Amino acid sequence: MENRITRKEENFSQWYIDVILKAKLADYAPVKGCMVIRPNGYILWENIQKNLDRMFKESGHVNAYFPLLIPESFIQKESEHMEGFSPECAVVTYGGGKKLKEPLIVRPTSETMIWSMYARWITSYRDLPLLINQWCNIVRWELRPRLFLRTSEFLWQEGHTAHETYEEADKEALKMLGIYKKFVEEYMAIPVYKGQKSDSERFAGALQTYTIEALMQDGKALQAGTSHNLGQNFARAFNVKFATREGGEDYVWATSWGVSTRLIGALIMAHGDNKGIIIPPKLASLIAVIIPIYYSAKERSRVLSYIQSLYLNLKNDFNVKIDDREEYRPSYKFNEWELQGIPLRIEVGPKDVEKKQAILVRRDTGKKIILPFNEVSLRFSTLLNEIQKNLFEKAKRFKEENTFKVDNLDDFQKVIDDKGGFIYAHWCGSPECEAKIKSLTKATIRCIPFHNEKEEGKCIYCGGKSSQRVLFAKAY
Amino acid sequence: MENRITRKEENFSQWYIDVILKAKLADYAPVKGCMVIRPNGYILWENIQKNLDRMFKESGHVNAYFPLLIPESFIQKESEHMEGFSPECAVVTYGGGKKLKEPLIVRPTSETMIWSMYARWITSYRDLPLLINQWCNIVRWELRPRLFLRTSEFLWQEGHTAHETYEEADKEALKMLGIYKKFVEEYMAIPVYKGQKSDSERFAGALQTYTIEALMQDGKALQAGTSHNLGQNFARAFNVKFATREGGEDYVWATSWGVSTRLIGALIMAHGDNKGIIIPPKLASLIAVIIPIYYSAKERSRVLSYIQSLYLNLKNDFNVKIDDREEYRPSYKFNEWELQGIPLRIEVGPKDVEKKQAILVRRDTGKKIILPFNEVSLRFSTLLNEIQKNLFEKAKRFKEENTFKVDNLDDFQKVIDDKGGFIYAHWCGSPECEAKIKSLTKATIRCIPFHNEKEEGKCIYCGGKSSQRVLFAKAY
Repeated sequence: MENRITRKEENFSQWYIDVILKAKLADYAPVKGCMVIRPNGYILWENIQKNLDRMFKESGHVNAYFPLLIPESFIQKESEHMEGFSPECAVVTYGGGKKLKEPLIVRPTSETMIWSMYARWITSYRDLPLLINQWCNIVRWELRPRLFLRTSEFLWQEGHTAHETYEEADKEALKMLGIYKKFVEEYMAIPVYKGQKSDSERFAGALQTYTIEALMQDGKALQAGTSHNLGQNFARAFNVKFATREGGEDYVWATSWGVSTRLIGALIMAHGDNKGIIIPPKLASLIAVIIPIYYSAKERSRVLSYIQSLYLNLKNDFNVKIDDREEYRPSYKFNEWELQGIPLRIEVGPKDVEKKQAILVRRDTGKKIILPFNEVSLRFSTLLNEIQKNLFEKAKRFKEENTFKVDNLDDFQKVIDDKGGFIYAHWCGSPECEAKIKSLTKATIRCIPFHNEKEEGKCIYCGGKSSQRVLFAKAY
Repeated sequence: MENRITRKEENFSQWYIDVILKAKLADYAPVKGCMVIRPNGYILWENIQKNLDRMFKESGHVNAYFPLLIPESFIQKESEHMEGFSPECAVVTYGGGKKLKEPLIVRPTSETMIWSMYARWITSYRDLPLLINQWCNIVRWELRPRLFLRTSEFLWQEGHTAHETYEEADKEALKMLGIYKKFVEEYMAIPVYKGQKSDSERFAGALQTYTIEALMQDGKALQAGTSHNLGQNFARAFNVKFATREGGEDYVWATSWGVSTRLIGALIMAHGDNKGIIIPPKLASLIAVIIPIYYSAKERSRVLSYIQSLYLNLKNDFNVKIDDREEYRPSYKFNEWELQGIPLRIEVGPKDVEKKQAILVRRDTGKKIILPFNEVSLRFSTLLNEIQKNLFEKAKRFKEENTFKVDNLDDFQKVIDDKGGFIYAHWCGSPECEAKIKSLTKATIRCIPFHNEKEEGKCIYCGGKSSQRVLFAKAY
């Protein structure tokens, strides 16, 4: 295996691709714009799913499955919503050997399909709230694909809920954003800004779009999850009315929310280094690899039997693996497991057997820790917590050090070009200024942070009155 | 809610549909041939997935994800394999707003896509065995759809493995069939016959197809899972060669294996009764529902507080729910939870509070068991095991009582028409006799059972020499 990867300081984009291909996280598919998620990448998605799914269920949500193929007329029905998608659609025109009377769209998102069903299922306030989530694949035609970040097909979850009131829907959208933030920060160890989108960055058809925004090591932002208060737009389009508690009738209030396999891209770019990816322990399936070091057959058997007892001490509580492949040297194995981001490596050589100890090497810092045999299993959890915490703290420091208060357009341009990062600047609220700033600097408004400090200032573009700063960045 | 369902003795097909719709397991989608799997149905699929996935992983398999859309040329490449599918294909002809140069087929199965990737990943025996599974959606155009059993889109898992030798591949295919049998019998409580398919019933492109066959209550068989020894056919089509241990070069040996959401259809038809579905405890998410019975406000508060302690006694070990909805009467709730197949109902009225007891009602038998308060949690596991066992034993008896040894075509026809079930009869081995029997009786060879007794006899169709009996049935 050729493990050489481009240095990230040299070419971050190439580093990203190299890491993914060499760590066998994904591969290019023979269909333009599509990827194959290989087992090393898919296990990350499984761990993301497992934890988020538990959090969704604990907050009262249930899963269901809706069809992949959506009648074209549905998508025209909610034209405001779909306008942004149509060039992104994959269209099925033949089925059962015949040309179809009505083309079917491979789902780019499922609001229309789901609300056409909600029209049948909801008649009264007793049917509300309806809190349904779906894990599935999505197709949006992509002309400039990028593994995990933009591919013509990706995996995601989409929550679609129905409520009695605007307030309840808004509360739900905010609750789910809170769950995303908790998951991304506590499990993925990626700190985020939480806020709402400007009108032009909002999901078409939503009254409000809420977002969490993370910072990648190249200074670009990545939208890690969004939730939408959809108002009554879909209920109107699909005529979903309910009998209210008060004996009247009203359209149902909706939310939707989603995260996708692009989170894996975020994980790679938030924590990875020139050795490969780094998986936070709480998202890792394999926690540690034990690697024997020996130079003779006699040493080999001593080291392997020592390792076996170490393994038995750990295996009930942790997913640990012995790498005793004989065809590879220890240094090769070190590189391979570092490339794959496994949180801990345990090295055991003849000297360690003699001294009844083991050498633990942290993937995040590379620091070696020598521990007596009996202390390895005792210290394991603490060590994993330290790694988890360190990854988060490091990323948090990076985010803070790369969030810049800027007060004029020149500085804005300079910071964006030289350093990247988030720019916290005044904006008058007009879509025109937002568009001009975007075309000049390629930076967009990532969010208007929640609990934002009110501060009088001048729009960095037009100089008009502004009551608050917002977060700009170039983004993935 | 209108709970009336057609009696299964009256019209089994209609009973099946009624049960699915009333128990909210699935609904018809607005796209012809497709279904929506509603939360009550999807949780069954999640429990099937969870248990099978654990069994797959324990036997060394890993998950991955391959693209939904397959270039048409791939499918032509393996023409022997795909011949059976082409009229079943949904074809994408537009993408990104343009007509595509090469149409893309929505995957009807993923052998071709996966083997095109294996061609890149496998070069040496060191890369083998490769044991990959995928959970995904599949589209096969269906003109006569039937909820869960035949829909244009369904969910499944497909395992695709690569091996050094024929023997190893065959062992894998048999191992996976064993896992399917274990799962279907131990978790779903459905007994099956295990065997291999005749040449004409074999998966196109396979050297051997192995199958487990279950019997539904209307006397029709249902293929519950299959595994295939694919030989070197896909390796040849996609030119997947590997350097052998001996320094030579050979095509890789393949297997594939799958089960789908049709297992939910099997569950319904194997155990359901005129009250609704019956979920075996090992596949149930919700294990028991506690229903309070009272006639006055005073009774209500006493019953509810008693129930609360009962609930607290159970909830750590079992997923139990209190149904204290005030807008519905107890009898309504009894019907609803019976319809949904929840294994146990716990009734508590004022008298039970007085006597410090509770009434447990088994879904499988309807039998009431009165237990002192303190014994409820103690007896719970035993009771669930008894239900699980009883469901299996009952289905097994049914299968055995409906497997008939038959020695001539007249009896064959009579049994098939009057009773249905499996017919264990002699067959000479010729595809012509098999086809004639099928066209006369609509029964097909479900399998040639493993460890079949050798017995001299005469083919029931042509009277030619036969060395063993095979299992015929009409099938879903």
